[in-house]
Amino acid sequence: MSEKNRSILLASHGTFAKGILESVSMILGEQADVETFCLERNDSLNTALQKMTELFEKLERNAGTIIFTDIYGGTPSNVAATFLEKEDVQIFSGMNLPVLLELFTNRSMEMGELVKHIETIFPTTLTNVNQVMQGGEADGDSLD
Amino acid sequence: MSEKNRSILLASHGTFAKGILESVSMILGEQADVETFCLERNDSLNTALQKMTELFEKLERNAGTIIFTDIYGGTPSNVAATFLEKEDVQIFSGMNLPVLLELFTNRSMEMGELVKHIETIFPTTLTNVNQVMQGGEADGDSLD
Repeated sequence: MSEKNRSILLASHGTFAKGILESVSMILGEQADVETFCLERNDSLNTALQKMTELFEKLERNAGTIIFTDIYGGTPSNVAATFLEKEDVQIFSGMNLPVLLELFTNRSMEMGELVKHIETIFPTTLTNVNQVMQGGEADGDSLD
Repeated sequence: MSEKNRSILLASHGTFAKGILESVSMILGEQADVETFCLERNDSLNTALQKMTELFEKLERNAGTIIFTDIYGGTPSNVAATFLEKEDVQIFSGMNLPVLLELFTNRSMEMGELVKHIETIFPTTLTNVNQVMQGGEADGDSLD
């Protein structure tokens, strides 16, 4: 994998992170240099920190790392935040599929630009399908 | 389950829908009257429609149904859109964990009000954790 690509870690309560990476792979194909952290019900904070550290260290991290977590204030996000002290790490919470597709297809973008791009597109990634259908907009058949 | 609660169907490519419901359950406890549709790689459109119909029919649907899909224009969303013709169904695409927590905790809200609530809060559900940490905002330890 090119040194210019950001490494990616997805982190969640339960198997959400693994599941959403499966969605990404079904649409974009298999992705390199990405790991998924899935907090289990009985994981202590120490276990969570150890698990996430092991995953983090498996990443290439040649051009910074983006950690995307499920929700701000949860254990996966709080544990990820401890990595901010160490390295070139950017953490977002609130991952959904449209924003991850943007992230994976633009991971060679310069970090500051990528952060701005994600923040800009995020509000557009919720679609009220009823409204779109009533308005007769595009039928959206471009994805699988 | 009260007749006033909306039924909920979560739909995605792969096991994302199942995984995010696991996240919801880890934070809010087990939820009633909810089903998850997980499109598999080899599912035809007909298989997808049949699978989603079976799940839809298992829901109580006494006070309308909210279908939340992974991404607008994908098969799960397109199949869900065929249900708009039949019944009191509201479909959103772009699900993430913060918005689902809002949905599950407000599912007794009147449908129009709930739709407005989701659209209003959605843009706030992305958090740039680096920025929050630098700004010294709340440490967000209120979730598990």
